[in-house]
Amino acid sequence: MNQSTSFDSKNPAELIGLIAENSRKASRILASASSSQKNDFLLRFAELLIKETDNLLLENAKDVSDAEEKNLSAALVDRLRLNPSRINSLADGLREIAELDDPVGKISGKWERPNGISVEKKRIPLGVIGIIYESRPGVTADAAGLCVKSGNSVILRGGSETIRSNLAISRLLAESLSQSGLSPFTAQVVPVADREVVTEMLKLEDKIDLIIPRGGEGLIRFVVQNSMIPVLKHYKGVCHVYVDEYADLAMAEEICRNAKIQRPGVCNSMETMLVHSSIAGDFLPKAVRRLESEGVTVKGCENTKKLLPHVSSAAEEDWYEEYLDLVLNIRVVPTIDKAIDHIQTYGSMHTDAIVTKDPENSEKFVREVDSSAVMVNTSTRFNDGYQLGLGAEIGISTSKLHAFGPMGLEELTTSKFVVRGNGQVRN
Amino acid sequence: MNQSTSFDSKNPAELIGLIAENSRKASRILASASSSQKNDFLLRFAELLIKETDNLLLENAKDVSDAEEKNLSAALVDRLRLNPSRINSLADGLREIAELDDPVGKISGKWERPNGISVEKKRIPLGVIGIIYESRPGVTADAAGLCVKSGNSVILRGGSETIRSNLAISRLLAESLSQSGLSPFTAQVVPVADREVVTEMLKLEDKIDLIIPRGGEGLIRFVVQNSMIPVLKHYKGVCHVYVDEYADLAMAEEICRNAKIQRPGVCNSMETMLVHSSIAGDFLPKAVRRLESEGVTVKGCENTKKLLPHVSSAAEEDWYEEYLDLVLNIRVVPTIDKAIDHIQTYGSMHTDAIVTKDPENSEKFVREVDSSAVMVNTSTRFNDGYQLGLGAEIGISTSKLHAFGPMGLEELTTSKFVVRGNGQVRN
Repeated sequence: MNQSTSFDSKNPAELIGLIAENSRKASRILASASSSQKNDFLLRFAELLIKETDNLLLENAKDVSDAEEKNLSAALVDRLRLNPSRINSLADGLREIAELDDPVGKISGKWERPNGISVEKKRIPLGVIGIIYESRPGVTADAAGLCVKSGNSVILRGGSETIRSNLAISRLLAESLSQSGLSPFTAQVVPVADREVVTEMLKLEDKIDLIIPRGGEGLIRFVVQNSMIPVLKHYKGVCHVYVDEYADLAMAEEICRNAKIQRPGVCNSMETMLVHSSIAGDFLPKAVRRLESEGVTVKGCENTKKLLPHVSSAAEEDWYEEYLDLVLNIRVVPTIDKAIDHIQTYGSMHTDAIVTKDPENSEKFVREVDSSAVMVNTSTRFNDGYQLGLGAEIGISTSKLHAFGPMGLEELTTSKFVVRGNGQVRN
Repeated sequence: MNQSTSFDSKNPAELIGLIAENSRKASRILASASSSQKNDFLLRFAELLIKETDNLLLENAKDVSDAEEKNLSAALVDRLRLNPSRINSLADGLREIAELDDPVGKISGKWERPNGISVEKKRIPLGVIGIIYESRPGVTADAAGLCVKSGNSVILRGGSETIRSNLAISRLLAESLSQSGLSPFTAQVVPVADREVVTEMLKLEDKIDLIIPRGGEGLIRFVVQNSMIPVLKHYKGVCHVYVDEYADLAMAEEICRNAKIQRPGVCNSMETMLVHSSIAGDFLPKAVRRLESEGVTVKGCENTKKLLPHVSSAAEEDWYEEYLDLVLNIRVVPTIDKAIDHIQTYGSMHTDAIVTKDPENSEKFVREVDSSAVMVNTSTRFNDGYQLGLGAEIGISTSKLHAFGPMGLEELTTSKFVVRGNGQVRN
């Protein structure tokens, strides 16, 4: 049952080559699987996670105690820890994925050419997806569910700090795949922690169609620098709320508060507030007092400091920072154009919001800000696959190719042309 | 007027950094340009190409004579040569691009969430596109037209063998961009032939959104290996026609003839014919005699040689070969599954066709062959942006990410989420 046995004698290149080869073969079987077969797997897998909770927690406890022994940070230990409620959420997530529409096979366009050939664009899986991630063992279950539902085989390469938890989940994956009549190689966990495996994996452009790295910026840069395979990446979320001169100031206060403090440690929370100079005097003192009363530390530009002398100065590098914490930059801007300039210069094309009652300004902002989600009179925190109605998400892409923004099931597919004729040839 | 003057003192990294910076700025202006402004540029540029034909031919003649002096191959010299008819075709192509629908700003989906926020997906340009190509100076005009129409700035880096022609075209580009009120930096030709410029260009992931290499496999592999920027690539077209046991043999003969000989030097022509064993005896002798009479050299598997002892043997490496010439592999297969296996093993996911009257077999082929275009009872030669009705194409992608198959204007865009509310915050 333990996948690693047969791999023991292999070097990293051979090992990952074999895993990828098996994944490619499994992907061909999976591409023709019915939606009900894929859903059957999701429901069985969810059930097994619950049934095997005790065993999962046992394996996870070993990872946790190793991590504590190695003095890894408390935040990291927290990310790798499983508990019954987290496992329940994972199982619920899988059941929700089973409820979603299957994108595979959908026809997104169909037309006929003057010579009588018919052309259609048909959604197909990408093939084999490699996920490279750190810490969170939940990703193993969650990413496997999303990939399989969208018809893709998946190779899961988690961090060494969570290898026992991941292998325990992988056994449940293999069991539920087999029970649903799918290949156990459809979703494989790389059974060794060797970093060289990643380097070798990133060269296999014939066998792997897409790499999704999930983790810190260091991991993502390493993957982008070394990959021959296309990468869907998310560097960071430096998100802004611009409070326009025509904003409803009470609404602006609520939106800024939500964007900053509702969950400061995530990518779609606000890092910098931009405030039009004509309303800064009315807006800032009250809004900042409230934010500070909830624990936020403010760094301001010179004009902010004229209104609020007690705040510290924002340095040039602060405007680029993703704090992921209760820290906020504030800049007073003389025009909407300067606000947009600021976002284009310091932002990360993730999520940016305007608060305004003026339709011309909101449309200008929507047109000129090239972020994956542009929000008008609502919180940046809504840039999320579930909140936007995609049903699920495997991540948020901040690169414009293939998918920009939250990636749901459809973003894990591509389309091919199917051309039907009755003997037409080209002149 | 000559771009190179101000760049003379820069090293390759500084030079391409400055070009990319200017391109990014120009892309922001272009993203808000109207369709009629972009079309105005296309028509002016077409007109200038015609008006300045003599001057273009003069500059091109210098490139040609240099290439001949350096004893470059006749095929390469042919590719870099311009003549009045080629310049006319380029101008016609630009006028056709002006006629096409502008993809920018199109809403591809719109829905409302239970909390009242409205979500729409809106097409936007990618931003800055880098094209790295060899030989053909026509690409400079053609790619610039497609990129600008789809709202993207473009950096054009052609080969050293055609630098004078490219710089001459670049002066016309700058002039027509300025006359249409667009930045002359919207479409820039890299004014030096230094290879290091390419290496440095591929690192600029903050300034360039997409790289499209056009040329031989060596160039494309170099770009993929060195790029931090997403690459849309086309390695090769190893295309197959499978003649099923239920094929109309007369139709199969016409389709195979067209796929092989109508234009053998292009990516969507057939390299290997797969023939079901039950009809091989009826089909092959006549079909091969006809192909041979038109100059085709045949390499066959053992079973082909049993029917046609005079043909040479296909070696294992031949099945992977993109001949781009009047050479054809033939393999007799016992089942449709073996035909699909062959395509999955040796093909390049470009274009593959089945000829059959049996709907079950055609649907099986469509489902299981994961090529960018799957053809039923029609020639592989139709896998082309113009032929399939996309109006134009910048290339054919054989990688599944972002675009798979011919890439038209829409494939040069992406989409962002626009979310509108009236004060909603997240719980």
